[in-house]
Amino acid sequence: MTSEEPRHRVVVVGGGFGGLNVTRALAHADVEVTVVDRTNHHLFQPLLYQVAAGILPPGLIAPALRHVIRKQRNARALLADVHDLDLAHRVVRAEGPDGRPLELPYDTLVVAAGATHSYFGRDEWARFAPGMKTVEDARRLRDRILSAFEMAELAGDPSERAEWLTFVVVGAGPTGVELVGQVAELAHQVLPMDYRSVDTTEARILLLEGTETVLPPFAPKLRRYTHERLTRMHVEVRVETLATGMDDESITFKGPEGEETVRARTRIWAAGVRASPLARMLAEQTGAATDRAGRIAVNPDCTLPGRLEVFAIGDMVSLNKLPGVAQPAIQEGKYVGKVIKARLAGDERIPPFKYLDKGSMATIGYRSAVADAFGVKVTGWIGYAMWGFIHMLYLIGWGNRLGTLYTWARALVFSKNRGHRIITFEQAHDQTTMHGAEPPPGPSSSSAPPGPVE
Amino acid sequence: MTSEEPRHRVVVVGGGFGGLNVTRALAHADVEVTVVDRTNHHLFQPLLYQVAAGILPPGLIAPALRHVIRKQRNARALLADVHDLDLAHRVVRAEGPDGRPLELPYDTLVVAAGATHSYFGRDEWARFAPGMKTVEDARRLRDRILSAFEMAELAGDPSERAEWLTFVVVGAGPTGVELVGQVAELAHQVLPMDYRSVDTTEARILLLEGTETVLPPFAPKLRRYTHERLTRMHVEVRVETLATGMDDESITFKGPEGEETVRARTRIWAAGVRASPLARMLAEQTGAATDRAGRIAVNPDCTLPGRLEVFAIGDMVSLNKLPGVAQPAIQEGKYVGKVIKARLAGDERIPPFKYLDKGSMATIGYRSAVADAFGVKVTGWIGYAMWGFIHMLYLIGWGNRLGTLYTWARALVFSKNRGHRIITFEQAHDQTTMHGAEPPPGPSSSSAPPGPVE
Repeated sequence: MTSEEPRHRVVVVGGGFGGLNVTRALAHADVEVTVVDRTNHHLFQPLLYQVAAGILPPGLIAPALRHVIRKQRNARALLADVHDLDLAHRVVRAEGPDGRPLELPYDTLVVAAGATHSYFGRDEWARFAPGMKTVEDARRLRDRILSAFEMAELAGDPSERAEWLTFVVVGAGPTGVELVGQVAELAHQVLPMDYRSVDTTEARILLLEGTETVLPPFAPKLRRYTHERLTRMHVEVRVETLATGMDDESITFKGPEGEETVRARTRIWAAGVRASPLARMLAEQTGAATDRAGRIAVNPDCTLPGRLEVFAIGDMVSLNKLPGVAQPAIQEGKYVGKVIKARLAGDERIPPFKYLDKGSMATIGYRSAVADAFGVKVTGWIGYAMWGFIHMLYLIGWGNRLGTLYTWARALVFSKNRGHRIITFEQAHDQTTMHGAEPPPGPSSSSAPPGPVE
Repeated sequence: MTSEEPRHRVVVVGGGFGGLNVTRALAHADVEVTVVDRTNHHLFQPLLYQVAAGILPPGLIAPALRHVIRKQRNARALLADVHDLDLAHRVVRAEGPDGRPLELPYDTLVVAAGATHSYFGRDEWARFAPGMKTVEDARRLRDRILSAFEMAELAGDPSERAEWLTFVVVGAGPTGVELVGQVAELAHQVLPMDYRSVDTTEARILLLEGTETVLPPFAPKLRRYTHERLTRMHVEVRVETLATGMDDESITFKGPEGEETVRARTRIWAAGVRASPLARMLAEQTGAATDRAGRIAVNPDCTLPGRLEVFAIGDMVSLNKLPGVAQPAIQEGKYVGKVIKARLAGDERIPPFKYLDKGSMATIGYRSAVADAFGVKVTGWIGYAMWGFIHMLYLIGWGNRLGTLYTWARALVFSKNRGHRIITFEQAHDQTTMHGAEPPPGPSSSSAPPGPVE
């Protein structure tokens, strides 16, 4: 370091809602912030399902992290994958994209590494029912969903076609509801006119939920509305139903009416999350507890037991049983930024973190959402407008806000199209290979898809 | 086929400019059109370099082919890869994305399969210097270009950093000029503020061209302007210079001043194209000649010798020495549609294809282009405006036109950003692996990148 007195070094692991908000809160502090993320972008996850549905291009919700913080001259972004947190030596170890080792010494460490999918111990299901946490995940889901319709169009055999037209979403939290709503919209509203051999409205779309209701944390009125609305959108909602098995072409689940196997080529996992493995690493070094989802218990000020210079925030912590959504991470990030600044000013008596519940919302489909915010519970297009307005506010950058507004307006006007329907051929290939689809046995079924074009 | 009398079956191989225009020209004909493409989209190639540069999301220039033709009820799109044209049995053989065999019998066949990169017999260069023909190619180029700056930021060693900051574009046709202009804009205008350890304006950017000038087919005035403008944008233009060797980290080329090797991690190939292998397949079955670039010689009405029911158009044919750009393919497509309709009406005396030269244009960089159209030769921002206006006209769909207009306006206003800068981590990994970058040998060079943040 070239300056006379070394500045206080803050290393932030993760450039999501938590990490970005810590960084920004330190904008005018006399510190040196390094944000390490294994992607080059800050992802606005609440809109990620719209990438999977072909509505939004990922760029609008995933600005380059280093661009977001470009004006904050005391911060820098590094593209690297953190694999070791050495609390004893106060150093973070990471790898660059080419495997190059990086060592980042710190005075204060903030770990905001988020969460990933959890298959409840059935990790082999990951290949049968992918989840959606990253831009790449969303793009692959888009590939899968759209190419399922393509494969149905190519299928000569009616039962194979039906398999390609069957979609099962596991988990009816906000992500599951939003994804299943999009699949229903694609099948019933967007795609029908584009296909010749296939009637996409014949698609069978199931939503499985282990608890007794869709959107468990929402108010009963909103849950009822969501259930009814999904049913009207031709989604079969199965509550108290758990996936019990999967293979290349089918999924088995058990509900109140017993066990059932459905042949379905496209399965989407939105059921469980598990904290980043870095949570366990912190727990091992500090004796902090972790819960079933691998989330670490932090002190009321987000520090770790016996390591007051180490903070953990966001989806990887179990603080006050907050939900794994954006708001807790954002608020914890801002709070930790304040704590760090106060400490540098010599003030150690910071009140513990307090969460301000700003409500929750989820879209169901075309001009329909449920929202529970500002003390009111709204549904339908009012909920949809509220949802849109709030998400617009939280997006980063006016360019992205206007671009998203335009794209939504376009999706409402041209409701029979989606602007971003590219299938990556290599991935379509992977998918079908992954699905284990085999070419039909004989030349009899190998001819062109049946049915004349009109 | 369920109708009483089978309709005339037209199979179109390729959904690019040629194939799409044949299909559209047959909209009101009593035929059944099947367009087969191995991607699900119609690609507007003239703007593909803007995807590689992070300006446009690919969706805006690559609408789903089946959506583009959705209202044309006598046409359908199939996602399949054609591998055999059996002219004797009048059948096209293809494979679905899962390898499933498809047989498409035809009465009339139109082959519009385009072209791919050519490395002039040095196919091993493909991994060192990728080209740009598909959406995936453009996304990978974007990954490469953007992650080169990321790797430079991570590099501790100055000489390694310089390698990551050296870019070489091979070939100074419109694509090469447009790509090199974008790299220069990124390094000098867009990215400088986003990096801390690296000064991106130190980037060294070379453009190699085998002939004696940039943009060989353009008027001398426009070529001079382009050369000067690129030089002012800090691009080293080397004419009469041919690549003679490449490896993981460097490129060797030979020019008027002898042979030189430059260490450069990012090389981009824009030098040569070769017709689709289907051209050779047609040539073998008809005795038609092919030229050095593998393009097939067709009759003046785009049919093949002795096979009047088979047409070939676009980049894969060598008709009247037309350039491999959009206009010949579009015009040939429309023409062949007319020929097919006339024949069905019993009229065999169609005049041969005649090309109407609408001019040519290329962008150089920020608000600068050269255009030679309507009899005038313009440069600078007037050329840029003309270029933008014309490309806007040719885009498909108002949603895409407005979206592109918005994105361009955004790029002009927020000229220090690019809206679509996502790096796919897996690909960044591939890249560096592909580039053969090894982790530094000892722990001495493995520490965090040097230099304090300001």
